[in-house]
Amino acid sequence: MNWGQVVSEIVLEPEYAPGLQGLEEFSHVLVLTHLHQAEWDPEKHLRRRPQERGDMPLTGIFAQRARHRPNRIGVTAVEIVEVTDGTLKVLALDAVDGTPVIDIKPYVPYYDRRDATIPEWMTRMMRDYF
Amino acid sequence: MNWGQVVSEIVLEPEYAPGLQGLEEFSHVLVLTHLHQAEWDPEKHLRRRPQERGDMPLTGIFAQRARHRPNRIGVTAVEIVEVTDGTLKVLALDAVDGTPVIDIKPYVPYYDRRDATIPEWMTRMMRDYF
Repeated sequence: MNWGQVVSEIVLEPEYAPGLQGLEEFSHVLVLTHLHQAEWDPEKHLRRRPQERGDMPLTGIFAQRARHRPNRIGVTAVEIVEVTDGTLKVLALDAVDGTPVIDIKPYVPYYDRRDATIPEWMTRMMRDYF
Repeated sequence: MNWGQVVSEIVLEPEYAPGLQGLEEFSHVLVLTHLHQAEWDPEKHLRRRPQERGDMPLTGIFAQRARHRPNRIGVTAVEIVEVTDGTLKVLALDAVDGTPVIDIKPYVPYYDRRDATIPEWMTRMMRDYF
């Protein structure tokens, strides 16, 4: 599916709602999630060929963004749609419905934006995927 | 101090060392840390004026990158210096010595790089700080 158009609603526990104050002045956030449906089986996940594709190199979990990882924490950089009392709406959050959110951080280009390069295999995988 | 020149060494538990395979093909990583020296006191930290400065607005923790937050997880985007057997060297990791690393993810511009804007107060704070 096309995640790019999905608006997700993050609802805070009431005691944390005041923590959103001022977030509407930022354009983007990092959302940290607990990947609660992921598993960790070192035999299967410590090293694997991305998407089980034979034309992909054997790759360690720390060189992949796969969700089956030792500490099941996801990090997603998303655009803010709306901040209301205790609720944050964001665009294109790559998480299944009901995923627990464990932190919200404002996206700060000085900390978060990098001119980074990726391997050829990942470029190829993303070209096929998107 | 000038973090920009510091090379940090992340040493994996031996059982996770194979998980680094292929990481040397990326230029940057996201390092997730347990901010083990941070505290969480809602009275003090849920909303505060950044750096306790009177000229900063009262701001919620989810609109700040301060380490005193409900789930003490740090996310830092850093350049890879070297990947060796079970050890990763990175540049300018903003973490005190001994900080536990809980995940390493390859930095992928498609997921992580955003043209984001920040509030005037943060621009002002960073100008004074760096």
